[in-house]
Amino acid sequence: MYKVKVYITLRESVLDPQGTVVKGSLHSLDFNEVQDVRIGKYMELTIDKTDRDIDAAVKEMCERLLANIVIEDYRYEIEECVAL
Amino acid sequence: MYKVKVYITLRESVLDPQGTVVKGSLHSLDFNEVQDVRIGKYMELTIDKTDRDIDAAVKEMCERLLANIVIEDYRYEIEECVAL
Repeated sequence: MYKVKVYITLRESVLDPQGTVVKGSLHSLDFNEVQDVRIGKYMELTIDKTDRDIDAAVKEMCERLLANIVIEDYRYEIEECVAL
Repeated sequence: MYKVKVYITLRESVLDPQGTVVKGSLHSLDFNEVQDVRIGKYMELTIDKTDRDIDAAVKEMCERLLANIVIEDYRYEIEECVAL
């Protein structure tokens, strides 16, 4: 069994209005030292072992469904774990 | 300057309907080996150095604004970096 952590972030060149709002809220809570906030998604997938190559499978999941690769970047970490 | 990565996930006991939908979509794309999907948020904050303790400040930001601690868990990593 694999535990896969996927991080999806907006590309640097894409505006992040949600992040801008959160930054404003942090400033109004008196955290004026916050210079920038970028908001992305984080997913944890639990995947069974198959004959398929796990790395290629996760890459395909990201490209076909999880990330919008026009405006988002993705990266992932794969951990193999023993089912209890 | 600090770069802070914040990971916000739903608590284990909380249902994740969005994750269930993504799992269904992955199955319909023929990724039947996916057992579970949990979706959370990922934030990158850029924070200036101040007299305030950075760890305590980030913890307070999470508890007061970024995470809903009733249903969500959070963890964060703080990296110190040199402004270029």
